[in-house]
Amino acid sequence: MYKLNFADLSPERFLAEYWQKKPLLLKQGFSNFSDPLSADELAGLALEEDVESRVVHCANGDWQLETGPVSDFSTFGERDWTILVQAVDHWHADAARLLDPFRFIPNWRIDDLMVSFSTPGGGVGPHLDQYDVFIIQGQGKRHWRVGMPDNTLEQFCPHPRLLQVSPFQACIDVVMEPGDILYIPPGCPHEGISLENSLNYSVGFRAPAQKDLLTGLADYLIDNDISGTRFSDPAREVSQNIGELASADLAQVKQLLQQLVSDEQSLPLWFGQYISRAKHELDLQEPEPHYQADEIAEYLEEGSELSLTGGLRCCYHQASADADIALFINGEQYLLPGNELTTAKLLTEQRVLDEQQCRHFLELPERLGLLVHLINLGYWHFTD
Amino acid sequence: MYKLNFADLSPERFLAEYWQKKPLLLKQGFSNFSDPLSADELAGLALEEDVESRVVHCANGDWQLETGPVSDFSTFGERDWTILVQAVDHWHADAARLLDPFRFIPNWRIDDLMVSFSTPGGGVGPHLDQYDVFIIQGQGKRHWRVGMPDNTLEQFCPHPRLLQVSPFQACIDVVMEPGDILYIPPGCPHEGISLENSLNYSVGFRAPAQKDLLTGLADYLIDNDISGTRFSDPAREVSQNIGELASADLAQVKQLLQQLVSDEQSLPLWFGQYISRAKHELDLQEPEPHYQADEIAEYLEEGSELSLTGGLRCCYHQASADADIALFINGEQYLLPGNELTTAKLLTEQRVLDEQQCRHFLELPERLGLLVHLINLGYWHFTD
Ligand SMILES: O=C(O)CCC(=O)C(=O)O
Ligand SMILES: O=C(O)CCC(=O)C(=O)O
Ligand SMILES: [Co+2]
Ligand SMILES: [Co+2]
Repeated sequence: MYKLNFADLSPERFLAEYWQKKPLLLKQGFSNFSDPLSADELAGLALEEDVESRVVHCANGDWQLETGPVSDFSTFGERDWTILVQAVDHWHADAARLLDPFRFIPNWRIDDLMVSFSTPGGGVGPHLDQYDVFIIQGQGKRHWRVGMPDNTLEQFCPHPRLLQVSPFQACIDVVMEPGDILYIPPGCPHEGISLENSLNYSVGFRAPAQKDLLTGLADYLIDNDISGTRFSDPAREVSQNIGELASADLAQVKQLLQQLVSDEQSLPLWFGQYISRAKHELDLQEPEPHYQADEIAEYLEEGSELSLTGGLRCCYHQASADADIALFINGEQYLLPGNELTTAKLLTEQRVLDEQQCRHFLELPERLGLLVHLINLGYWHFTD
Repeated sequence: MYKLNFADLSPERFLAEYWQKKPLLLKQGFSNFSDPLSADELAGLALEEDVESRVVHCANGDWQLETGPVSDFSTFGERDWTILVQAVDHWHADAARLLDPFRFIPNWRIDDLMVSFSTPGGGVGPHLDQYDVFIIQGQGKRHWRVGMPDNTLEQFCPHPRLLQVSPFQACIDVVMEPGDILYIPPGCPHEGISLENSLNYSVGFRAPAQKDLLTGLADYLIDNDISGTRFSDPAREVSQNIGELASADLAQVKQLLQQLVSDEQSLPLWFGQYISRAKHELDLQEPEPHYQADEIAEYLEEGSELSLTGGLRCCYHQASADADIALFINGEQYLLPGNELTTAKLLTEQRVLDEQQCRHFLELPERLGLLVHLINLGYWHFTD
């Protein structure tokens, strides 16, 4: 278990004073830090088809980017390159635990764990991101600089797939050591240049843009064959200007759209499905053959433990105290009775269900049925 | 020129009493009607790749549907079939004129002209549509029945691509003769069975559903690379229920969507582009080589006339008296100064520009430039 050491701050004060406002350095945010994976393990992941990775190299101002899978690391040389692997929490259970200390922020808001390995001089260059990030220093030392948002910074692409910014003024300038943590809000320019072979862990957040929300809602309507009502104009008057798109007609178009995005029933259902969908491949191991309910019951009675597959996104919504609970797992929705909050919480707030928590699912056939379903999808699996 | 004969009604009273409310039969709505095209010409169109057509056949309760292009009409026999051709106004200038009498309703609301040829016994069966339609009887006689909207009607598919309704009670039951016109609002069941070889012209309307609007807006944001703002939560508090998708977070999601669909600046621009896009192929003949401005000027000075390509959708929007005018043609947007209303009206409200109207475009180089652009796209062409 990693324990976040907020120094003289608390999570409350961190949220109030820094979250989405200004960058923060937590020296020894993890004390006695030990890396959950090695550079070799990371390189191993980058060889995989299903894992998203890229290598960034810079020598004499010439930026190169190569997307994985990487086949041969020997060509990169001893310095000036970084390999970045996305969604390592999906593939490496120990690394996934690095997300847990940040769960004073709700699940749905957390995206994934990116891990980078850099040789001396390596880095992706000065840039800014649209998302909050906590960058944890693993093995090795890296020089990090972070600035405040600055509209005068220019964005440019030294390589078609690299977006960088012009030189910025730093408010944090530090050589990070193992266990140091940097919090960077969206829009703050930052740059890390490795001083030695080093590992960095980025806990990234998810913050959909308006376009993503609208596109997601449109996809939901299409997938669920929801057309809504049509434009109608029973009060139309004879038009003198047949070419005109009149303001009154536009007002009705607007009203139809507003009504659609304000539907209190469907909005939570759509958003829950949308936001619980993982953006990267999951390492789902569907049991073959599927378990029967009585087999699962037997294992649970015998005292088995269950683990959640890494990267699986789970959340629930309950509109009011007695309302049905909508449980969202990996883009699917399950409707639970209003008194099943414990079930919803166990399935969304625990990464491991211990013996006693498992037994909760033996109390009702519907609960057991849901768990069996989730196990047979490979979402939960018995801890060896 | 077809002139609509409203009998004891006026366009005003038609809109007030019937439009989107109840069906209406206009006996001899077009007096002395003569068909703008022949059954043979229609069959010729149905042979074309670019033209959307389908043949519906029914014998002894067995419904068949075949999509065009049709290669051989001889297989269908003498009776019990109908051929329906979409967007005939895109391909046949004389037929396109059938839309003109209905332009007391604005352009953007009018969709296309569908034409059907039916042999005795032919028809598509009892059904209802989501759109208003005027059905004009051409040559031959056809038995039409129309009912009022009725929630108890059942919809079913006698063929995977035919949607029909159960038997309905008729409020209009008539043998239509050439020049008779039937107005049918959305949702009213209707059925036409041909008594002899007959032609029917359907003036269809366009009424986007909420889903279409939202999908269209999403496409617009994607095409124009408009991301909008991101979800942000600088006031977030420590979460006790990390699995919860809280109502406060959902409220912000809703607010982001509402803001997006309420933008008074972009809504008209988007909707104008969206609704001016034709749904069917256009018969655009781009001049090769393109005209130069001085060539066009010369032709206009000499007294040429211009015709609009059939099916081209044109409209404009001006938010207030002095505001810029957004002109929309075929999914493209052109911004005109606020005092160019005459230009906007000529380009959207006329199907033909006579000598004098053409000369309007000689008065300003920008006007001429716009016209040259539209001619070079094949939107307007010199009348032979
Ligand atoms: O680890 C790296 O090299 C890049 C980290 C970074 O910029 C980020 O996570 O936003
Ligand atoms: O012409 C036909 O056979 C079908 C016409 C029709 O149902 C319509 O235009 O809605
Ligand atoms: Co970054
Ligand atoms: Co119909």
